[in-house]
Amino acid sequence: TRRGVPEAILAEGKTAAEVGALAATAVETTGRALVTRADDERRAAVRAAMAEDHPDADVTVDERSRLVVVHGPAFEAPELDATVGLVSAGTSDAVPLGEADAVATEMGARTERVEDVGVASIARLLDRVDDLRACDVVVVAAGREGALPTVVAGLLDAPVIGLPVSTGYGHGGNGEAAMLGILQSCTVLSAVNVDAGFVAGAQAGLIARRIGAARGE
Amino acid sequence: TRRGVPEAILAEGKTAAEVGALAATAVETTGRALVTRADDERRAAVRAAMAEDHPDADVTVDERSRLVVVHGPAFEAPELDATVGLVSAGTSDAVPLGEADAVATEMGARTERVEDVGVASIARLLDRVDDLRACDVVVVAAGREGALPTVVAGLLDAPVIGLPVSTGYGHGGNGEAAMLGILQSCTVLSAVNVDAGFVAGAQAGLIARRIGAARGE
Amino acid sequence: TRRGVPEAILAEGKTAAEVGALAATAVETTGRALVTRADDERRAAVRAAMAEDHPDADVTVDERSRLVVVHGPAFEAPELDATVGLVSAGTSDAVPLGEADAVATEMGARTERVEDVGVASIARLLDRVDDLRACDVVVVAAGREGALPTVVAGLLDAPVIGLPVSTGYGHGGNGEAAMLGILQSCTVLSAVNVDAGFVAGAQAGLIARRIGAARGE
Amino acid sequence: TRRGVPEAILAEGKTAAEVGALAATAVETTGRALVTRADDERRAAVRAAMAEDHPDADVTVDERSRLVVVHGPAFEAPELDATVGLVSAGTSDAVPLGEADAVATEMGARTERVEDVGVASIARLLDRVDDLRACDVVVVAAGREGALPTVVAGLLDAPVIGLPVSTGYGHGGNGEAAMLGILQSCTVLSAVNVDAGFVAGAQAGLIARRIGAARGE
Amino acid sequence: TRRGVPEAILAEGKTAAEVGALAATAVETTGRALVTRADDERRAAVRAAMAEDHPDADVTVDERSRLVVVHGPAFEAPELDATVGLVSAGTSDAVPLGEADAVATEMGARTERVEDVGVASIARLLDRVDDLRACDVVVVAAGREGALPTVVAGLLDAPVIGLPVSTGYGHGGNGEAAMLGILQSCTVLSAVNVDAGFVAGAQAGLIARRIGAARGE
Amino acid sequence: TRRGVPEAILAEGKTAAEVGALAATAVETTGRALVTRADDERRAAVRAAMAEDHPDADVTVDERSRLVVVHGPAFEAPELDATVGLVSAGTSDAVPLGEADAVATEMGARTERVEDVGVASIARLLDRVDDLRACDVVVVAAGREGALPTVVAGLLDAPVIGLPVSTGYGHGGNGEAAMLGILQSCTVLSAVNVDAGFVAGAQAGLIARRIGAARGE
Amino acid sequence: TRRGVPEAILAEGKTAAEVGALAATAVETTGRALVTRADDERRAAVRAAMAEDHPDADVTVDERSRLVVVHGPAFEAPELDATVGLVSAGTSDAVPLGEADAVATEMGARTERVEDVGVASIARLLDRVDDLRACDVVVVAAGREGALPTVVAGLLDAPVIGLPVSTGYGHGGNGEAAMLGILQSCTVLSAVNVDAGFVAGAQAGLIARRIGAARGE
Amino acid sequence: TRRGVPEAILAEGKTAAEVGALAATAVETTGRALVTRADDERRAAVRAAMAEDHPDADVTVDERSRLVVVHGPAFEAPELDATVGLVSAGTSDAVPLGEADAVATEMGARTERVEDVGVASIARLLDRVDDLRACDVVVVAAGREGALPTVVAGLLDAPVIGLPVSTGYGHGGNGEAAMLGILQSCTVLSAVNVDAGFVAGAQAGLIARRIGAARGE
Ligand SMILES: Nc1ncnc2c1ncn2[C@@H]1O[C@H](COP(=O)(O)O)[C@@H](O)[C@H]1O
Ligand SMILES: Nc1ncnc2c1ncn2[C@@H]1O[C@H](COP(=O)(O)O)[C@@H](O)[C@H]1O
Ligand SMILES: Nc1ncnc2c1ncn2[C@@H]1O[C@H](COP(=O)(O)O)[C@@H](O)[C@H]1O
Ligand SMILES: Nc1ncnc2c1ncn2[C@@H]1O[C@H](COP(=O)(O)O)[C@@H](O)[C@H]1O
Ligand SMILES: [Mg+2]
Ligand SMILES: [Mg+2]
Ligand SMILES: [Mg+2]
Ligand SMILES: [Mg+2]
Ligand SMILES: [Mg+2]
Ligand SMILES: [Mg+2]
Ligand SMILES: [Mg+2]
Ligand SMILES: [Mg+2]
Repeated sequence: TRRGVPEAILAEGKTAAEVGALAATAVETTGRALVTRADDERRAAVRAAMAEDHPDADVTVDERSRLVVVHGPAFEAPELDATVGLVSAGTSDAVPLGEADAVATEMGARTERVEDVGVASIARLLDRVDDLRACDVVVVAAGREGALPTVVAGLLDAPVIGLPVSTGYGHGGNGEAAMLGILQSCTVLSAVNVDAGFVAGAQAGLIARRIGAARGE
Repeated sequence: TRRGVPEAILAEGKTAAEVGALAATAVETTGRALVTRADDERRAAVRAAMAEDHPDADVTVDERSRLVVVHGPAFEAPELDATVGLVSAGTSDAVPLGEADAVATEMGARTERVEDVGVASIARLLDRVDDLRACDVVVVAAGREGALPTVVAGLLDAPVIGLPVSTGYGHGGNGEAAMLGILQSCTVLSAVNVDAGFVAGAQAGLIARRIGAARGE
Repeated sequence: TRRGVPEAILAEGKTAAEVGALAATAVETTGRALVTRADDERRAAVRAAMAEDHPDADVTVDERSRLVVVHGPAFEAPELDATVGLVSAGTSDAVPLGEADAVATEMGARTERVEDVGVASIARLLDRVDDLRACDVVVVAAGREGALPTVVAGLLDAPVIGLPVSTGYGHGGNGEAAMLGILQSCTVLSAVNVDAGFVAGAQAGLIARRIGAARGE
Repeated sequence: TRRGVPEAILAEGKTAAEVGALAATAVETTGRALVTRADDERRAAVRAAMAEDHPDADVTVDERSRLVVVHGPAFEAPELDATVGLVSAGTSDAVPLGEADAVATEMGARTERVEDVGVASIARLLDRVDDLRACDVVVVAAGREGALPTVVAGLLDAPVIGLPVSTGYGHGGNGEAAMLGILQSCTVLSAVNVDAGFVAGAQAGLIARRIGAARGE
Repeated sequence: TRRGVPEAILAEGKTAAEVGALAATAVETTGRALVTRADDERRAAVRAAMAEDHPDADVTVDERSRLVVVHGPAFEAPELDATVGLVSAGTSDAVPLGEADAVATEMGARTERVEDVGVASIARLLDRVDDLRACDVVVVAAGREGALPTVVAGLLDAPVIGLPVSTGYGHGGNGEAAMLGILQSCTVLSAVNVDAGFVAGAQAGLIARRIGAARGE
Repeated sequence: TRRGVPEAILAEGKTAAEVGALAATAVETTGRALVTRADDERRAAVRAAMAEDHPDADVTVDERSRLVVVHGPAFEAPELDATVGLVSAGTSDAVPLGEADAVATEMGARTERVEDVGVASIARLLDRVDDLRACDVVVVAAGREGALPTVVAGLLDAPVIGLPVSTGYGHGGNGEAAMLGILQSCTVLSAVNVDAGFVAGAQAGLIARRIGAARGE
Repeated sequence: TRRGVPEAILAEGKTAAEVGALAATAVETTGRALVTRADDERRAAVRAAMAEDHPDADVTVDERSRLVVVHGPAFEAPELDATVGLVSAGTSDAVPLGEADAVATEMGARTERVEDVGVASIARLLDRVDDLRACDVVVVAAGREGALPTVVAGLLDAPVIGLPVSTGYGHGGNGEAAMLGILQSCTVLSAVNVDAGFVAGAQAGLIARRIGAARGE
Repeated sequence: TRRGVPEAILAEGKTAAEVGALAATAVETTGRALVTRADDERRAAVRAAMAEDHPDADVTVDERSRLVVVHGPAFEAPELDATVGLVSAGTSDAVPLGEADAVATEMGARTERVEDVGVASIARLLDRVDDLRACDVVVVAAGREGALPTVVAGLLDAPVIGLPVSTGYGHGGNGEAAMLGILQSCTVLSAVNVDAGFVAGAQAGLIARRIGAARGE
């Protein structure tokens, strides 16, 4: 685990057998495993590998976000005195936002989810601003036209990381408009790549770690 | 003048002499001339051509929007019973928004400008919603990340036309992010091309004409 | 239903179970449901959900356009005194044109279909101009090189919305040439994204609503 | 002169001195010179080079098309019994269409110009169809959305070559939409690159040569 | 059949039933049918439709080129006194070259195939130049880097049409490098879109028709 | 000054007069001005505007970074207990890195510059790792292939922000390769747009502010 | 076998039967066969074809790299006195690196593999520099941001060939960032296309052949 | 001088004063200077800097290739027993080919220029094959459609490096078609970026150095 960031196994593009084996190795060497973009078959393979090699491990599956988190029996979860906010417009942003949440949580941060606050109905977002003002760093997922991170950053003092999501079809579809919109934002933002929930969560986690450490100084 | 839309002369890419001559011809054949994207030299050429050929014509220059409008002495301005709203985030949107305003005005619509309402400070926009609710059709200019048309359309009942503006640098610069963001909008919008203020204003004018005619039925 | 636009459920990318449940919820909360891009399995799921939860609902399936429209027993269809024209070159434009038709109809507009009038045989289009001149706003679908909206807008006084369709292969295929051609049109047009029949129909519906309201003033 | 196609000197990107020298060499070795995309300075350089080295040569300058054609005293112009049609929407297509005309003429074909027949006013084009039906091969220039070659090819029996022109701004500007539209045409067409008037005229000339030869068999 | 070009039915993206029905209709209305990009299932559907509706029709299947040609009993094949050359580098160019061959043949031209003459072994191409010099117009298919049409056009007097083929992977793959290479060719060429064998063959057929007609004058 | 971020005036694309006036206004309303991308003429205009309107203001010009910073007499600089690292490969990265430095400094952070440590000579970078380990957040500028942020992030615990710089020519030039490389990094990074030194510095400043505040809790 | 480079059969996009037949022909005409990108079915087809036509042939299958190498009984492997280095960051680069290895080996070069040395952990790479300094030419595979070839070339005297690999998702995914990064490298490198392991290995083999021959002079 | 490759100063984008100073420093520290892409003013600045600081230095200017090479009095030119071939189609390739020549020469290789052998006249290339067969490694410059490296590599045993040149306009212009064509080549080639003559020459020099060393073993 470099920089406190858990080694993640991207299940997509690997066989179920490979994913199971990699997860078992991760538990052995780092005490835990984080598997992303796992379908039914690959999730089952992780469970099976644990049943065989690490029967005492704690296995948590998040179907909606296509994630598996495994904690070996000896694993001691880190704890940070800092909060990561996680914002999205709707259900299609669930997978990358869930990845970001899982990574930040694994790094020991508290997380706060603010969902269903798309810019088409600005009032719903304004209702949740106080929850967001309590966060130390905020990840904002954005599909389609990707306007949400810009609007959120205009309302907050904390650093905001824009996470474009591969929704949308036609010109600028698959997250391209969202990616470019975040890079062009008229507010101060940094960006990660399309669907890179893992990176967004880990970058937020690194910031939270530094803030948590400062609180403890 | 097809469809009530004034013939416009795009000064960019033409010599000053050509622009002057074309403007004179337009006044002769249609009673007026609308010259867009005209620098100092081309604006002077239009004035000179009018001084010579149409000394009684009424020449109006809008430096900020780089426009010249000429009405021949016999020209009778049309009048429509409908209002076109024109929204922008800031000064960089002035040229295309000014073009849209000029065309809609030439077509006889009333126009209502709502400026400096960028999404980075959402409160300024909310303050102006009532002005916008009084419009029959709204053109929203959008540079950088192009979020403004989406947010405006979420607040209104009237049809909204997104007008991307060629601001911004780097990836998605020159209006590309704004163009794609408008095409991907999660609210209902139609779009015109980057910096196509003339087209946006004319399309709004056509809609206003139809509404004005219906009011008069 | 924002702005009179029915909430639509885009079936593509959702499971059959999700689509059925979302349709049932829509009927409950808004009195109707409009499901787009639904294959056999998802259409069946909507029927099944209605059989169970809303046995009195009226379910209409349009296979060619891959649409399902559901009206709950208490739903009162709106009616507008305005006509939306819907033009296409041929059969490949059927899905997005059908979506546009369904949305405009759901918003209460009258619709007029003019099909099989591709620019390769200009005479067939000229034969139908009178039908189009009776419309208040016209959506023109355009695949391949996307020339049809430009030619139609040159023949009409009403506002025209170009709807690019993802036909064609090779360079500029999948609707790219059509999209760019509409944005570059030498007539006045506004555009929606490739295959965004829902957006085109809704924008036409918003314009029709304003015209219909003006007629009633 | 390969394939009867005159060697052309593209003046753009060369110094005036280089252009003058290359033109003089061309007259020496092939009896003529064809200089394209020449500004005032480069046109003057060609005149000067001829005044010095080939005082008996016949120098024709076409300012609008930025061309210079030089025939040495001994040059015998070829003559073909075939006609090349040359169609355009308006004045912005003048440079590439003029290049096409010059090359076809230099190859010995008769040429027929049909101008100002853009698709926004289809009636003007229909008025000229008989002139075009008399041609053996037709080059159609197309800026902006590039619809004209498709419409023309739908009206004729002869082969049509689409010549995209670098007009237009924003998305698909600089001839991109026109290029893609020609490649996606729903009628049978072949294409040359953006602004490649020389290539279009030469390809039409090669076809005309073959037809002329067949007439003479 | 516009311009002598047979109506072709692009089987890709249509159901087997639709393809069979369209083929039957084509035989009824034009005396023949040309079906392109047909897999086993769609080829069988055409056979079945003919067995039922046109038992006397002549059905020819070309598996390698994925084509079916049907001639109704009354169909009289046209005949042109002109030859179309068809050149390719290797087996991957077979489908589009076969389409070009079929269309030119259906239009009545003689065709001459010159295959396996890729530029990596220039000697094999030079061996076949005399065969190509006997052709009136030549279609050259080109995958990967698309150099072949340029080299062929440098060796011939006849007009050459470049046909890019969607081979290759990585940057410039799927025919993009070939398409751009043909448009940038340093010899005189015209182009059709990637894999547009039908268009290349039809354009060559239109040229051949004009030459054949001239021979008969 | 939103979020403690100074309002910056992007001099590029504005007239010298406009830049001078905007700077004077900024000093009036926020106590300071930060002018970026200012050439000689615009820098002189700022000096002149200050001489006239704010003769007591403190004007600092950084020619290499094309920046002007103005502090009005009453301005009290903020101070943060946190350090921003600023890394670059060489002189071409100076302008955006200088912008980042100026903004972070204006926000009150300490800054540490580590320059001339390009990946082509990895030893020079390794020599400076200890300096970087002392920073709380690090901005890494990257032109050409953009490898430096990835290598730096692999060596540090602190969050790293990649800042692509518009060097390089040919494919991937103007910062495109660097932008994409940062988004694809195999280490955890967030990104800003090409040449967006202002944004990178402001995002680092926001993070530093949060850390500094935590240290003070 | 041109230039000592074995004819390779790219199995992807060919039927199993075709691949088997092509392999048999290759063994007949050149004494060996090299089949790349072969899945289970195509690998089995090669085995079967050999069992039938060349029962004495030596068949080697490399599953991880999806390769089959066949040596006929009479084949005499070439031998070169030169070493090709083969470097990669991790397991995802295995297929193209394996292709490069196979081709260089078939050309007679010695090969040296240096794997798992990604730039995120620069120390692992530095540990292997001595192994690389013993090579005459080095192929470096690079997915994601493609920084590895640049860093390696900065450490070596031998020529380095960058081989981009199609890993990564979102902007710059599928090897695009790696391709552009190699072309923009701030060290001296040449490049092959994305995933073109065959080409990289063959180019390295050609260089090794020349060096080996020089050693033997 | 890393890897024997001279440090080159890219004059483009630097002031004349900077270029003069950098050249003087290079002579001081490495004994020589290589200045590329230098216009008149920058070439004069190098001469002036040498006149002042290094009056005994040997200054060679190559106007056509926009290069200056300076050798300090103590500089001892390296010498390699190996030959680099340098091939181009015509005069537009002169600048990058000249850069490649200068670098290879500075590294001590013998160089052999083969110019004016474009693929449009294949016979001229075939006449020069023997000269090329005597080379150890060959750089082939390629503008427009970029076919020349592919054809040359098909004729030679030595490794070939393709160097795309930024000629051509329209689609695929500015070297894009050439770049993609080299990457897609159906022969074995490696590539450098568009106009990267310095890199091509240095990579050829590195290969030549290794071959020369092997000859001396
Ligand atoms: N065919 C369609 N094309 C474009 N937008 C659609 C379509 N169908 C539904 N929508 C829109 O997409 C939204 C649903 O998005 P989602 O939350 O992903 O289901 C709806 O509110 C509609 O505005
Ligand atoms: N392989 C092909 N490539 C290009 N165009 C084709 C092809 N096959 C058929 N076509 C054309 O596509 C038209 C049919 O389009 P559709 O209405 O979608 O079936 C026909 O009229 C042909 O002109
Ligand atoms: N160099 C820069 N890069 C990016 N953004 C900048 C830069 N300088 C100023 N800005 C931002 O651009 C805004 C000014 O935009 P404008 O209204 O066009 O002057 C400021 O509020 C800053 O947030
Ligand atoms: N994996 C590969 N990558 C790139 N080129 C390959 C590969 N395998 C084979 N080839 C080349 O592709 C040619 C075969 O192309 P084809 O005629 O389509 O089978 C061979 O001559 C090889 O030069
Ligand atoms: Mg959103
Ligand atoms: Mg905006
Ligand atoms: Mg169409
Ligand atoms: Mg509209
Ligand atoms: Mg080829
Ligand atoms: Mg042609
Ligand atoms: Mg950040
Ligand atoms: Mg090489």
